[in-house]
Amino acid sequence: MTKNNENQTILPEPTIRRLPWYLSYVRMLDNLHVEYVSSTQISKELNVQSSQIAKDLSFLNIRGKTRIGYEVHRLACELEDFLGFNHQHDAVVIGTGSLGTALMQDRGLEHYGLNIVAGFDVRSEVIGQSVGGVPVYAIDELAAWQREHGVSIAILTVPVERAQETADLAIASGMTALWNFTPYRIRVPEDVVIANTSIYAHLAIIYNRMGMS
Amino acid sequence: MTKNNENQTILPEPTIRRLPWYLSYVRMLDNLHVEYVSSTQISKELNVQSSQIAKDLSFLNIRGKTRIGYEVHRLACELEDFLGFNHQHDAVVIGTGSLGTALMQDRGLEHYGLNIVAGFDVRSEVIGQSVGGVPVYAIDELAAWQREHGVSIAILTVPVERAQETADLAIASGMTALWNFTPYRIRVPEDVVIANTSIYAHLAIIYNRMGMS
Repeated sequence: MTKNNENQTILPEPTIRRLPWYLSYVRMLDNLHVEYVSSTQISKELNVQSSQIAKDLSFLNIRGKTRIGYEVHRLACELEDFLGFNHQHDAVVIGTGSLGTALMQDRGLEHYGLNIVAGFDVRSEVIGQSVGGVPVYAIDELAAWQREHGVSIAILTVPVERAQETADLAIASGMTALWNFTPYRIRVPEDVVIANTSIYAHLAIIYNRMGMS
Repeated sequence: MTKNNENQTILPEPTIRRLPWYLSYVRMLDNLHVEYVSSTQISKELNVQSSQIAKDLSFLNIRGKTRIGYEVHRLACELEDFLGFNHQHDAVVIGTGSLGTALMQDRGLEHYGLNIVAGFDVRSEVIGQSVGGVPVYAIDELAAWQREHGVSIAILTVPVERAQETADLAIASGMTALWNFTPYRIRVPEDVVIANTSIYAHLAIIYNRMGMS
C-alpha cells in the first residue's frame, strides 16, 4: 500500500477519533526518549483494547515488531502524517465573535495543520480589522475572495440562527468542507464534508451525568 | 414522572447529543413566533427519523398533540430545562493559554448554563491577573480554593503532556466533573464525570474526508 492510497482511504470515524489519542501518547513517550511501545502498553495507558489498537494502526504504513512493539518516533511521525497534522491546510473563519476570534488567535491549531488565513463577518465595526494578524472581510466578499485564494475549509462560528444560511452561502462560494461550531444541525449536499463540534452537547452530557441538570 | 426524576435519568449519549439540535431549531421557530411543530417537521429539517425524535422527546415532561404536534415555546423551555442550560453551573478553567482564555471570554457558554468563576495556571506571569473579569490563581491553590467555593466542574485546557497529571490534581482537589479539551485520553475514577471535546480529532476527520491529509 502506498502512502497516497492510504491517505485516500475513507477511515471509519471511530478509528479517526482514536488515532489522535495514540498520537498524543506516543508524542509524550517520544519526548521522554522512549524507543519502543507495544499495543499492550498503549492499551493500558489509554483504556482501549489492544486488538483494536493493532487494527487501527494497521491502516498506517508501519508495523510493530514481535515482542518489542512499534518504534515510538516513527509511529508519531506516521500518525501525524496520516492524520494530516503535518501539512498546512488553509481555512477561513466565518463569524468573528468570541469563539471565532479565539480560534483565529489559537496557535495550537497550527500544530494540527490548520492555518486560518481570513475571517468574514457582517458587522461593519470588525470588517477591515485584523485578529491575531488575520484580516477580517465582509461576508459579501467571500465568493470573490474564494475564487482568488481557493481555500476550501470554512469554520462556522456564527450565531446559531444564522448557521444554515451561512453554510449555504459558504458552499455557494466554493467551500467544500465545513467545521460547524454552532449547535445547529446543518444540512449540506453529499459532496460537502461537514464536522460538527458540539461543545454544548458535551455540556449537557456533563450536567446530566452529574445529575445536576 | 416528576421533573426531578427525569433529570436524574442517565440518558443515552446519542439522545443527549440530539436534544441540543432540537433545541436550536425550536428556539429559532419560537423567535419566528411559530406556535406548533410536529416531529415530522423537525425530522425534515434536521434529517433525524421522526420516530427517533418522538422517542428522544419522550424523556421530557411534554407531549405532542395528535395532528398538531408540540407547542414550540413550551418545548424550547422544557428542552433548556432538561438539558440544564437554564441553571448556572460554576466551573473553573485549568490552563489559561489561548483556548482557556477564549473559553473564559466566551459569553456564549453562559447561555448554556456554564459560569466560569476562576482560572488556574502554573505560569507566574498570568497568576494574579484576570481574564474577562475572571481571576487567575496558582494551580497550587486549587485544593484550598475548591474547599472554600465547592465548584465541581473543571475545564482542562492545559498542554497535552500535562493532561493526565492535571486531571489527577483536579480530582484530588475535589472536582467531580472534567471537560477535557486536550487530545489526551485521560483516565478517571468511575465516579468522576468526563466529557472529551476532541477538536483535533474533528480536524483529522475533515482532512481525511477531503482526501487531502
